[in-house]
Amino acid sequence: MLINVPETVVADALRGMAAAHPELTVDVENRVIIRRDAPVPGKVALVSGGGSGHEPLHGGFVGPGMLAAACPGEVFTSPVPDQMVRAAAAVDSGAGVLFVVKNYTGDVLNFDMAAELAEDEGIQVAKVLVEDDVAVTDSLYTAGRRGTGGTLFVEKIAGAAAEEGQPLERVEAIARQVAGASRSFGVALGACTTPAKGSPTFDLPAGELELGVGIHGEPGRERRPMMTSGEIAEAAVDAVLTDLEPRNPVLVLVNGMGATPLLELYGFNGEVQRVLAERGVAVARVLVGNYVTSLDMAGASVTLCQVDEELLRLWDAPVRTPALRWGM
Amino acid sequence: MLINVPETVVADALRGMAAAHPELTVDVENRVIIRRDAPVPGKVALVSGGGSGHEPLHGGFVGPGMLAAACPGEVFTSPVPDQMVRAAAAVDSGAGVLFVVKNYTGDVLNFDMAAELAEDEGIQVAKVLVEDDVAVTDSLYTAGRRGTGGTLFVEKIAGAAAEEGQPLERVEAIARQVAGASRSFGVALGACTTPAKGSPTFDLPAGELELGVGIHGEPGRERRPMMTSGEIAEAAVDAVLTDLEPRNPVLVLVNGMGATPLLELYGFNGEVQRVLAERGVAVARVLVGNYVTSLDMAGASVTLCQVDEELLRLWDAPVRTPALRWGM
Repeated sequence: MLINVPETVVADALRGMAAAHPELTVDVENRVIIRRDAPVPGKVALVSGGGSGHEPLHGGFVGPGMLAAACPGEVFTSPVPDQMVRAAAAVDSGAGVLFVVKNYTGDVLNFDMAAELAEDEGIQVAKVLVEDDVAVTDSLYTAGRRGTGGTLFVEKIAGAAAEEGQPLERVEAIARQVAGASRSFGVALGACTTPAKGSPTFDLPAGELELGVGIHGEPGRERRPMMTSGEIAEAAVDAVLTDLEPRNPVLVLVNGMGATPLLELYGFNGEVQRVLAERGVAVARVLVGNYVTSLDMAGASVTLCQVDEELLRLWDAPVRTPALRWGM
Repeated sequence: MLINVPETVVADALRGMAAAHPELTVDVENRVIIRRDAPVPGKVALVSGGGSGHEPLHGGFVGPGMLAAACPGEVFTSPVPDQMVRAAAAVDSGAGVLFVVKNYTGDVLNFDMAAELAEDEGIQVAKVLVEDDVAVTDSLYTAGRRGTGGTLFVEKIAGAAAEEGQPLERVEAIARQVAGASRSFGVALGACTTPAKGSPTFDLPAGELELGVGIHGEPGRERRPMMTSGEIAEAAVDAVLTDLEPRNPVLVLVNGMGATPLLELYGFNGEVQRVLAERGVAVARVLVGNYVTSLDMAGASVTLCQVDEELLRLWDAPVRTPALRWGM
């Protein structure tokens, strides 16, 4: 691993992020990443966060049109309520704050506590839970479904609504609509290595894959001998479509887990598009890349988000963050 | 690997790229990626290309403000002259074409031949050679220095000059200036696996690293027991500074080889910035991410490019490509 010592990995990364992104305010000591112009008068502020190791999620999505702030925890560990309260206080303009929470037990508890503490300080807080992973209910870190790639759609689309100046109830409703319309399924082709452990966190022999893996390497549905890109696309898309029957066009995220080359991700996207066409699903937009990663895990996930005209308009709206950037 | 069969990896990726990027014209059959509005009247067109496996280089750099077209070869194999001639013909507006060539024997020969063929068709062609890797002279694929991360600076800055409508001689001169002012040094922490071979292309035991590795896993200067991120930053920056003594501020690219998590890359950037500050080097801009990769190799490289006010202005100029995007 390219690190100094495991204990300083997150602080070291935040220092490096500060140097690379002068357009953000990075509070290394308190572990909060904030858009530089926050609080933005009259506008709702989105705050998210979660364990580190999934970069660019969430810090790479801070900026105009998406998150106002992000709170990184230790690797694969929830941030603490103090970070979230500090973030909320830094970005609240008086229009309120929306917490975007991935459904992991620690994250849910800590964002709940932070919401209470922030409200005690006079900040209006709403919350949206992202639980888009159809692979399993209840897992190593979760009761219920895990929050994964759908988080990107929630943060982008609700962030656009906030940027337009829509009120908190409306931004929250849009975030809930997106969360409810998003479904994901992931596949691991190789395990990831956390800095603290220094060796693969689970055992996945060469020549096998894990269907339905979580973003921390949590077990999925099934371990199988290696499949082709086309077969994996069929398994992933069909798992999603079993749970979501899109009447409207979908946004598609073909997401790399970390160590899968972009060359292979694009090839996988070709297969995903073929399967979607065969299943009669209309595609509005496609995003391919490493957005919700699991350190150096090999593999990919597919997220679909069914959109109406309004959600598509908000998806297309300008955004300027380290990892997503268009139109401004 | 997330592939169908090794034989179709490049064609599969191009199909997936076409689906993800309607703003590009992807000629899957002839393996050329072209900006959709080409040829742009009155403007010089940059064309590059090289072996696949380094994505987003070069296809991800096609678009307004950067490349007019890219030609992907097979994995780690030069594209053929026919691709380059086809690309040049598709993008030439009459203002001429600049070939950006990384210094590998096959690329150099094939771009030379393509330049002759294109000129036979009445296209004015200039060439710039990128040979920025200070690690070794002469290597597995190269006579002289290898072309690596500096390519991104050449393509972005000369692409901006072309976008402004500067004439071919001037765009070529700027490209040469950038190539001459760029130096790189890379480190591998783990080997990469090509689709054709299906197993690691070189043997790098766990707990060791290769200082000065090339972007195909070619041997570097030295194999060492694992070093800390700070020690690697010192080795890489000092290797570059031995060859380049910047009087002006530098652009810094902290580039991931493929499988190194963004969390670690940001931490590495923090160490690179510390070393540059200690050495008295002024930093103008910093870019951190996976831009010139080696499939799933673990590791990183550092590229410095010394810039004057004009080159910095062109670096900051608007660009709209899949992998680099700002200001438009």
